[in-house]
Amino acid sequence: MIYWLDLFGTAVFAITGCLSVRKKGLDLFGIVIIAMVTALGGGTIRDLVLGIRPVFWVTDPNYIYVAVVAAIFTFIGARFRLFPAQILLVADAFGLAVFTVLGIQTALQHEAPLAIAMLMGVISGTAGGMIRDALSGEIPLILRSEIYATASLCGAIVYVVVSQLLVLQDGAVILGILTTFVLRLAALHWKLALPRFMIND
Amino acid sequence: MIYWLDLFGTAVFAITGCLSVRKKGLDLFGIVIIAMVTALGGGTIRDLVLGIRPVFWVTDPNYIYVAVVAAIFTFIGARFRLFPAQILLVADAFGLAVFTVLGIQTALQHEAPLAIAMLMGVISGTAGGMIRDALSGEIPLILRSEIYATASLCGAIVYVVVSQLLVLQDGAVILGILTTFVLRLAALHWKLALPRFMIND
Amino acid sequence: MIYWLDLFGTAVFAITGCLSVRKKGLDLFGIVIIAMVTALGGGTIRDLVLGIRPVFWVTDPNYIYVAVVAAIFTFIGARFRLFPAQILLVADAFGLAVFTVLGIQTALQHEAPLAIAMLMGVISGTAGGMIRDALSGEIPLILRSEIYATASLCGAIVYVVVSQLLVLQDGAVILGILTTFVLRLAALHWKLALPRFMIND
Repeated sequence: MIYWLDLFGTAVFAITGCLSVRKKGLDLFGIVIIAMVTALGGGTIRDLVLGIRPVFWVTDPNYIYVAVVAAIFTFIGARFRLFPAQILLVADAFGLAVFTVLGIQTALQHEAPLAIAMLMGVISGTAGGMIRDALSGEIPLILRSEIYATASLCGAIVYVVVSQLLVLQDGAVILGILTTFVLRLAALHWKLALPRFMIND
Repeated sequence: MIYWLDLFGTAVFAITGCLSVRKKGLDLFGIVIIAMVTALGGGTIRDLVLGIRPVFWVTDPNYIYVAVVAAIFTFIGARFRLFPAQILLVADAFGLAVFTVLGIQTALQHEAPLAIAMLMGVISGTAGGMIRDALSGEIPLILRSEIYATASLCGAIVYVVVSQLLVLQDGAVILGILTTFVLRLAALHWKLALPRFMIND
Repeated sequence: MIYWLDLFGTAVFAITGCLSVRKKGLDLFGIVIIAMVTALGGGTIRDLVLGIRPVFWVTDPNYIYVAVVAAIFTFIGARFRLFPAQILLVADAFGLAVFTVLGIQTALQHEAPLAIAMLMGVISGTAGGMIRDALSGEIPLILRSEIYATASLCGAIVYVVVSQLLVLQDGAVILGILTTFVLRLAALHWKLALPRFMIND
């Protein structure tokens, strides 16, 4: 079940990654690379810093296949307006929530401290998009505005607290995913944002 | 023999890396860093995701020496028009071909699945240039145009197919290198390109 | 003692990292990420390429705490002109000197060749700032001007030479740190710079 959610999140991140660079004039190869970076980048950094080797998509190439197929599907489908923006935003919020909880679980299985595990959850959910933005010459959007990483962090805290308190791991997973998902959707709906960095020179 | 080809590719990538950032106003240190990133970046990412530790240039510092010497040579030589663009493009195509096949061999030695090994070949050949472009504030050229990574991928497929079919590993190496090399030169000559990503907003 | 210097350098790099992106319109989360990347990025790359796993801040989360607290402190304090530029430049030079020597020590403990160890010192001191600049859409300043990485390299050479010649490791540490520190301050005071890369097209 978790595995299928993970592949679903991979596909969604690959699609939203491709669409976010639509004005950059990329070709088919560029789109496939951007899809892989967006969908697999966060988990790759998580595995590297935790010392998991090889990284997850070397062990299980299905993640690569899903990202590549999603990229080609987007490449073709985008010409036919196949992707309603609203549905993609909801799917992306769900992918963020799933990647966050899975990132924490992976970190805890490798005996990371709790604080590091939460950070790994946030990195799993957000680092792929940041690398994509750096590659496409943009300052990552999530560094500038929107409650995105913050939603991931709140879900991470809820998951860790609940899973430490309860014996029921499934309950913690569901609560963690729900927290990130609902908070992200609320942020989109009410345009919530964190305070900006201001300075007096 | 393969080892010398590898060092040759390292030198060529270092030189073309330096020349590609010639309008960025870098200083001597910046040029050396760009040379190392271009020449060693792809192999470094390959080793990291495969879990090879330490990475190849820590084990064998000759790669660092070659990249640094090539950078200083370029820094001085560029003032005297030492580098004919045509010869560099041919040398770069050859470096791409060599790095691709060597990347696959490294991956297969570490028991990566075939699809992952091919991807590692492409990453070995192209990721260094992508990191360089991101560092120098450009959208990587190979994401936008030209048959470059595609030439690497075709060589990777030929090498893997032939090396699985034949007992002759040397034949597979030569055929894989030739495929990438010839395809890259053909793409330069006839200005071949992949289709662009188009979207109906 | 060395450990406290290391945490001090982490705090300083986190603060200067945040201040260097003050015109980018980042929010609180963005500032925290930039602080972590600047302060921990160099050591993370060093650990990854050396094959140290997990990386240092997974083993000891204090580094994360210091970077996060420094970022939040900067976020609030910057509104009240708490950071005199002169003091920060001196503190940053000291952080560079400490990170350089610690980077070499870490590399030598993991049996890296001497040349690689020196490179690891420079990477520990400078790579975090480079990743930060790439993320914020700038060509890294240290690739373009100023004696910064060069000061780190000179301190690295002094430390390695002295520590190989002398039995006194403490003397080597002090001399290495002093070399980088003084050279960096001298470069700031007299505006020293390396020659630029020039080319005749």
